Amino acid sequence: MALIVQKYGGTSMGSPERIRNVARRVARFQAEGHQVVVVVSAMSGETNRLIALAKEIQPIPDPRELDVIISTGEQVTIGLLAMALQEIGVAAKSYTGAQVRILTDDAFGKARILAIEEEKLRADLDAGMAIIVAGFQGVDAAGNITTLGRGGSDTTGVALAAALQADECQIYTDVDGVYTTDPRIVPEAKKLNTISFEEMFEMASLGSKVLQIRSVEFAGKYKVKLRVLSSFEDSGDGTLITVDEEQQDMEQPIISGIAFNRDEAKLTVLGAPDRPGVAYQLLGPIADANIDVDMIIQNVGHDGATDFSFTVNRSEYEKAKAVLEVVCQHIGAREIVGDNKVCKVSAVGVGMRSHPGIASQMFRVLSEEGINIRMISTSEIKISVVLDEKYLELAVRVLHKAFELDKCHNNNRPLCGCN
Amino acid sequence: MALIVQKYGGTSMGSPERIRNVARRVARFQAEGHQVVVVVSAMSGETNRLIALAKEIQPIPDPRELDVIISTGEQVTIGLLAMALQEIGVAAKSYTGAQVRILTDDAFGKARILAIEEEKLRADLDAGMAIIVAGFQGVDAAGNITTLGRGGSDTTGVALAAALQADECQIYTDVDGVYTTDPRIVPEAKKLNTISFEEMFEMASLGSKVLQIRSVEFAGKYKVKLRVLSSFEDSGDGTLITVDEEQQDMEQPIISGIAFNRDEAKLTVLGAPDRPGVAYQLLGPIADANIDVDMIIQNVGHDGATDFSFTVNRSEYEKAKAVLEVVCQHIGAREIVGDNKVCKVSAVGVGMRSHPGIASQMFRVLSEEGINIRMISTSEIKISVVLDEKYLELAVRVLHKAFELDKCHNNNRPLCGCN
Repeated sequence: MALIVQKYGGTSMGSPERIRNVARRVARFQAEGHQVVVVVSAMSGETNRLIALAKEIQPIPDPRELDVIISTGEQVTIGLLAMALQEIGVAAKSYTGAQVRILTDDAFGKARILAIEEEKLRADLDAGMAIIVAGFQGVDAAGNITTLGRGGSDTTGVALAAALQADECQIYTDVDGVYTTDPRIVPEAKKLNTISFEEMFEMASLGSKVLQIRSVEFAGKYKVKLRVLSSFEDSGDGTLITVDEEQQDMEQPIISGIAFNRDEAKLTVLGAPDRPGVAYQLLGPIADANIDVDMIIQNVGHDGATDFSFTVNRSEYEKAKAVLEVVCQHIGAREIVGDNKVCKVSAVGVGMRSHPGIASQMFRVLSEEGINIRMISTSEIKISVVLDEKYLELAVRVLHKAFELDKCHNNNRPLCGCN
Repeated sequence: MALIVQKYGGTSMGSPERIRNVARRVARFQAEGHQVVVVVSAMSGETNRLIALAKEIQPIPDPRELDVIISTGEQVTIGLLAMALQEIGVAAKSYTGAQVRILTDDAFGKARILAIEEEKLRADLDAGMAIIVAGFQGVDAAGNITTLGRGGSDTTGVALAAALQADECQIYTDVDGVYTTDPRIVPEAKKLNTISFEEMFEMASLGSKVLQIRSVEFAGKYKVKLRVLSSFEDSGDGTLITVDEEQQDMEQPIISGIAFNRDEAKLTVLGAPDRPGVAYQLLGPIADANIDVDMIIQNVGHDGATDFSFTVNRSEYEKAKAVLEVVCQHIGAREIVGDNKVCKVSAVGVGMRSHPGIASQMFRVLSEEGINIRMISTSEIKISVVLDEKYLELAVRVLHKAFELDKCHNNNRPLCGCN
């Protein structure tokens, strides 16, 4: 008997028929002798509907009151799923975040979980009940309702799994696992049976939006076994996100996946004075303007000047450029050049730690296709390049093939998704 | 400075524009120096929408889970109203039933309020805030969400007024007060400036659906000054429901109003054995079948037999008849006769306690119009007659006129509604 936490998103809860499907799946796990805690999101579209309603009253909604309102979305679905389970003969009980007591700080709209009281849940589980918990919400020390921000239901699932020391946290989504890259670009993309937390972290932040990044972080920190599965297909074991170093055995491919991000823009300050503090002088005002910066590159300077580049989301390109122009006049930089038609392509894999030739292999493959690399940035487990946007699909395809991601790397594992 | 509890129903909260109207009214009371606690219902239609959604999943919804779901309706409106107040510069804070801690028993769907913790509310009021409380809901000792049943928001308002020892509980509805009868039937019907709790009780249970009957009971018990007002008109003092005996002065009319109920059906058991226990034998199975019985009449028997009559809601006539037929065979009654085309008309007034001729005056007026009385039942402050349904409007009109309810009885009072 295992204790399993399952999380279902808004699409899985989107209609009575889909809720019944989820109930049947939960019932099956129970029938197999497992204890099940289910975390659910609001019905798809409901949170947006409630936010729109609030904005009709108050264009910039009060964060405390907005959380009171939007937390109702999950409060409805927990009741519905508990009913659907009862209807097929499974004893089930719903809990709001406040009822569990998922204690958070008081940062309304983006609260962080501080503690979870698990005694009541454990008693109900031991009494044979399926427990349904509202995702995305908690309560602060003063009893105010809080929400965890977009995608917070994933975090609720992982946090509950950690608190209950669950054997596994299963995240059900509309994909059946994590792929070596986007199958819409590379039809030969393979589902990964396992991926390490660090890789998943890089994949998620690079645009493979399967899991909310905070929940991955959380799972890594608390060593929660996390699995991504499809809520629409019953077969398959999805992708297990491994925390256990031992699982990264010989079969581990060097590169696990090719991630990419289409909506990039790059900005370069030419001839900035090469002195301490210049990076802060340039990026401080950008941060103050609430613009998220992604890659940052500064090369060695010469003649007392240096070139400084960074990328931002394309939608913030003009705003960032305007901020930068003021700053550059102030610090006496020579020129600003920019390009809002670029993309980022990254090879991710823990295996590259022990394979120093990966970067040069990547550059060779791209050069063989005549793709000019505009920027390079590397970390321990990923290599990112900025390219002209028009090369995105080609670059992803040739890298996917070059690193043999279209071949099965899981031959000796049961239930490989590559057949 | 007074402490006022205001309750707004679903129609008053039915749209952002209407919510803004309510906010403006609350702001006005605050500006006059009053402390205001506002109790709100869900947006009109929302509770029914949620019940329908639940029934799609579970035809007979689990009561605990249904309360989890339907309590979200008020949770949305408290947030919206708090925002609307903030938007016009009034500090405001919302409370769910659980956050106030409106402690109830655990009778889901029809819970009774046991206690209210008022300390937090009082602190916020003293800090100058308007308090918005979700009507219709509470929490049981185990932390489960409960609801008080249809119209429960009125009860929440009165209970809060009692707990906070408020100076007045104002119930805002879509009518501007309690009338001597339905103005749709008698255009000359007058708004009453005051009505006693006992009269209101009889009026409400007889079909003047201005206030939920339980809230009237509650207000009487805890001596809460209750006022019914229009949420759509700004003028007028509505109708004050008086608990103070002294207010029932010389000006008090003998009859305060003519109430009526159209959807009645009557059943008569002829020749039932006239022995102890026969009433229970007849009505026990009716109650077991969840049929509400209204009037019950048994006349003196003769020759060891008696006739026994009662009325039920017309929608339950056939069901009641079927139950009765089984019972009558069992106890050996002669015959069952029934009529599902009857109505009930009642004259209500505390003044009739000291005016014994009222009943005969009522019967005379009806006989002069050729209206045959089918059943009669009296209490200390009301006389009810069952009539053929076709006479309903005529009977209400002639009684309203005969008891001079179209004349002003409030001449020497300020703000009389009769001008």
